Amino acid sequence: MPNSPESAEDRMIARYFRPLACHPGAFGLGDDAAAVTPPTDCDLVLKTDGVIAGVHFFPNDPPEDIGRKALRMNLSDLAAKGAKPLGFLLALAVPTGIDEAWIAAFAAGLGEDATRYGCPLLGGDTDHTPGPISVSISAFGTVPHGRMVRRSTARTGDCIVVSGTIGDAALGVRLRGDPSLGGSWHLTEAMRSWLEERFLLPQPRNALAEPLLQHAAAAMDVSDGLVGDLAKLCRASAVAAEIDVERVPLSEAARAALAAEPALLETILTGGDDYEIILTLAADKLAHFRAQAQAAGVAVTEIGRVQGGDGVRFTSKGRALTFARPSYSHF
Amino acid sequence: MPNSPESAEDRMIARYFRPLACHPGAFGLGDDAAAVTPPTDCDLVLKTDGVIAGVHFFPNDPPEDIGRKALRMNLSDLAAKGAKPLGFLLALAVPTGIDEAWIAAFAAGLGEDATRYGCPLLGGDTDHTPGPISVSISAFGTVPHGRMVRRSTARTGDCIVVSGTIGDAALGVRLRGDPSLGGSWHLTEAMRSWLEERFLLPQPRNALAEPLLQHAAAAMDVSDGLVGDLAKLCRASAVAAEIDVERVPLSEAARAALAAEPALLETILTGGDDYEIILTLAADKLAHFRAQAQAAGVAVTEIGRVQGGDGVRFTSKGRALTFARPSYSHF
Repeated sequence: MPNSPESAEDRMIARYFRPLACHPGAFGLGDDAAAVTPPTDCDLVLKTDGVIAGVHFFPNDPPEDIGRKALRMNLSDLAAKGAKPLGFLLALAVPTGIDEAWIAAFAAGLGEDATRYGCPLLGGDTDHTPGPISVSISAFGTVPHGRMVRRSTARTGDCIVVSGTIGDAALGVRLRGDPSLGGSWHLTEAMRSWLEERFLLPQPRNALAEPLLQHAAAAMDVSDGLVGDLAKLCRASAVAAEIDVERVPLSEAARAALAAEPALLETILTGGDDYEIILTLAADKLAHFRAQAQAAGVAVTEIGRVQGGDGVRFTSKGRALTFARPSYSHF
Repeated sequence: MPNSPESAEDRMIARYFRPLACHPGAFGLGDDAAAVTPPTDCDLVLKTDGVIAGVHFFPNDPPEDIGRKALRMNLSDLAAKGAKPLGFLLALAVPTGIDEAWIAAFAAGLGEDATRYGCPLLGGDTDHTPGPISVSISAFGTVPHGRMVRRSTARTGDCIVVSGTIGDAALGVRLRGDPSLGGSWHLTEAMRSWLEERFLLPQPRNALAEPLLQHAAAAMDVSDGLVGDLAKLCRASAVAAEIDVERVPLSEAARAALAAEPALLETILTGGDDYEIILTLAADKLAHFRAQAQAAGVAVTEIGRVQGGDGVRFTSKGRALTFARPSYSHF
């Protein structure tokens, strides 16, 4: 018999995903695996993270944004580690009801970000599932040998700095669940959109990777909430920290919501999905780091200091705060 | 407040998965990402594949075997590409009802294989899902620079060789779905177990990686069925092939089933989940390859020849066979 025609799966991959596989080692998705020659004197930084409909995004979110969110969550980790993106693998599982238009839009959005962040598709796995849409991504980056920015290397006396603004996504997801909150929080339409957008589509701080490599003592991305993630960094580094809550950078929308409902402070500081970077660095490096971040178009804010000992104190006007649930946990 | 205690998720990861993360670049799963120094003059081979309950395995399969199957599917691809395993990333999504004993058994099985195949855990992502259990793995291996064994490099005149036996898993999954078939097929208890085991737990041929690097012109693993996968290899190489179906290696159990129900030939040749390797190589290399495979404890069988032109012919006693559905496709 003649060569059997390509299967529907092969055609779908060729049509929608092959254009994303522009790395020569992806072989146009035409082999079983990718082959990548690592840059000389570099370490590979490897990370996997993903999203599931109904858990990390709303099933009616635009398909264009679902793959982008999954990719950006991983890019955020690469950024925090000082790594330059190299490429990614995609595992996509979709229910039988998903049509070709959904796949096309999903791939188009993902492809846009693959180009934007210089992170081409290297390979993938597509399945039908009886469950919800699931997108799992493994992303790879490079750092000079031995230079990955660690969590465990913060030093007593370091300044603690955070990028962007904190708490927007956690407020955004609450707004998505209950749109009437926009009224209670006295938000303008622009503020609502800002918060919801910050949940839908993280802004990974890959522009900070090089400044972090040069200046950071320790860093991680803020994905499970500022309070819990800083606690992780401090535990890993065997240090303590004091944070001045008044200095934690908030968007205009988050400030408005907080003014209307002061109890939202806990949501802002512990809700997660920020995809900002928290880092520590020596005080004499702060000005240079800030200048480089500014040149890269990312606002950074000093919010506290690393101390000897154990524990993270969040203080507001000299009073220590406590939180019922310091960090997002899946289990 | 003191450093917030580790979350339940952190504790679960530390208890069950950290022991699998023995690669120094996994940082004991204590950082956001892994950092791996690639061996000098090597390319990295990257692959992702996974399993979903109800699609690739039965929900009541032993948890010990579920992660092993997912890892072995990826190891099989590394083997076919001539790559030596380096490590893997795990994305695990489990329904809320899954208890800690399930996680413990899952991790124990996975850890056993990570050790057996020299493929340590480098990092992971765990989530709860409203859907079925899903295990997605990205596996990495190394080959000497530029030497990954490709699909697209078969040459006219090459011998076509396959490892192990074909069709067992496809029969095994039918037996799992309808145990009464064991009677119709006149199988002994040992034969039933063999076929079901071949579906439950693939035997990746990583022992063939080095012989493949030395001798193969082209190779891929057989996961979607011999007919469809050989057609893919021939399409990629722009060649044709003729296979003598009488020479396709079958287990005693598959031969018994086929004798009882000759129509099973299509299931055997197209059903998939074999995780054997199909390769082509120059005729004068066959004896040496066979000797190395034998020394590695893997049976290999010559089943046909690469020809010029287009199309794959499966012939039985001089008659060409046709298949209704040449290859497994998820879409």
